Amino acid sequence: MTAPAAGLDVGGTKALCVVIDASGTVLAEGEAPSPVDGSRSSLEALGALVAGVLATAGADPSETTLGVGLAGMVAQGRLVVSPHLPHLVGVDVEGVLADALGVAVRGVNDADAALAAEWAWGSARGARDVAMVTLGTGIGGSFVLDGRPVAGRGGFAGEIGHMVVVPGGEPCACGGRGCWERYASGEALARYARAALDEGRLDLDDGAGEPGYDLARALVAAARAEVPGAAAVLDELAHWLALGLANLVVALDLERVVLGGGLGAEADLYAPTVLEDLGARLEGAAARGPLALGPAAYGSRAGAVGAARLGARR
Amino acid sequence: MTAPAAGLDVGGTKALCVVIDASGTVLAEGEAPSPVDGSRSSLEALGALVAGVLATAGADPSETTLGVGLAGMVAQGRLVVSPHLPHLVGVDVEGVLADALGVAVRGVNDADAALAAEWAWGSARGARDVAMVTLGTGIGGSFVLDGRPVAGRGGFAGEIGHMVVVPGGEPCACGGRGCWERYASGEALARYARAALDEGRLDLDDGAGEPGYDLARALVAAARAEVPGAAAVLDELAHWLALGLANLVVALDLERVVLGGGLGAEADLYAPTVLEDLGARLEGAAARGPLALGPAAYGSRAGAVGAARLGARR
Repeated sequence: MTAPAAGLDVGGTKALCVVIDASGTVLAEGEAPSPVDGSRSSLEALGALVAGVLATAGADPSETTLGVGLAGMVAQGRLVVSPHLPHLVGVDVEGVLADALGVAVRGVNDADAALAAEWAWGSARGARDVAMVTLGTGIGGSFVLDGRPVAGRGGFAGEIGHMVVVPGGEPCACGGRGCWERYASGEALARYARAALDEGRLDLDDGAGEPGYDLARALVAAARAEVPGAAAVLDELAHWLALGLANLVVALDLERVVLGGGLGAEADLYAPTVLEDLGARLEGAAARGPLALGPAAYGSRAGAVGAARLGARR
Repeated sequence: MTAPAAGLDVGGTKALCVVIDASGTVLAEGEAPSPVDGSRSSLEALGALVAGVLATAGADPSETTLGVGLAGMVAQGRLVVSPHLPHLVGVDVEGVLADALGVAVRGVNDADAALAAEWAWGSARGARDVAMVTLGTGIGGSFVLDGRPVAGRGGFAGEIGHMVVVPGGEPCACGGRGCWERYASGEALARYARAALDEGRLDLDDGAGEPGYDLARALVAAARAEVPGAAAVLDELAHWLALGLANLVVALDLERVVLGGGLGAEADLYAPTVLEDLGARLEGAAARGPLALGPAAYGSRAGAVGAARLGARR
């Protein structure tokens, strides 16, 4: 990749676009609401976002590429299964954006994208055995093992949010029950915060009635402001994170886990608790050496940056 | 590997030795009780087993090699963590057997060995994304992903028996709670059979008082004889197997799982139930295509055969 490259990370609520140079430096960025349906006009609005960011970066569309990170199982560039973006399943995002922008477009899994960015230029650089764990509305994942990105049979490796951690537990959007993402995601954090509020263990200026109010985000802000009870709610999240991460470490013998997504960027608040819990529960913890656990260097932009990288390497 | 090679699989109760040729054909085999401690004389008894099997095969010890499969985390040829062979942790099995036999010896993880045999010559042949799951007293594992065996940071990848499937569940020999091997191993099957006997859901000629009585084995025999209630006990095992296998499939996008160990050889009895349960619970099951699930072609000899293969490839 030599010319600037565009990357788009389509999340459950918003879409983030970046343009990067060949060294992974972000030249320009912008965001817009995620498409609410799979119609051509909704996707063309995404195209307008990309066109605007390309123009800001001074990039020539005829010489660039676009990678699109999508939350879910992606085959041949399209979502085939997606609990969080169901309206984009089967939709030809690549084709519509290629037509609209006149660039080569490649759809990829969003966690694969985030790991591609962090492995090349960020917190996973030089690691041989590393997992990206994206903590947003749900949980996504991607692995580099023995120094190579892992694809799996159909390219679907890393759907770790749907590992069952509580048999018969909370219903999940995937159709299963007790999936890890029901216990250790942003959505789960909001649920723990709600319970703490309801039970009087936490006192927040509760804006739950307001449009766009995000209780998980409010809880994180409260923890940073040392609001009584907020740290204990984050500890609940940390406990469930540790349980799932321990399962990945015993199965794959990881040296490093990079936390992505919006909640990953707040890892300094809960990573120490996760590591303490991990050390206590992991088979053969002493023989393994410490796990490196921390946020993505690109923060919540890792998915968009990595989508740009993967889009340029088709 | 050209000359005959010896392999030894040291399990919790017995040790199996094979000598194979370069095409993986078993030329001779024998078994003996596992060492009950890590003393030189106990290990030399293993050496005598190997020497006898080599003699039966007509193999010249000076031209052969020995691989030793050990249940647990193996580093530099020695067990460093082993819930099931604690008395062999830190013991220089390689050195003692090399001295006793005059052959080059290599200690390896037993599930890595089983997969090495099945990938070269058995049920995993040609598979790009496959797990070996050994079902014995505990559960061991090993992976080939994207066509390459996975080692992990310290060579410990595949300790899947210690993935937690029930938070705060049954205590495990590893020091944790709720590990998969407490729910889906031979030991677990014996526990389910005991409960069924106690609750009158199963009627077996109960030889529990006799030395060497193996309730898991008796239950399997009862299921083959269509003893009422026995199949229902195997269904409990199948349910927990499916739960853990589903976690591996979503994380790694596997195409195939080979079941090894003593209980793996009985897979025809419970694999259909496992696959039915898997299909119902797996995220994106339809997009993935069917999982191939079945016993090791070498049955319970896979570990010894693979140890022979790995021992010859140092």
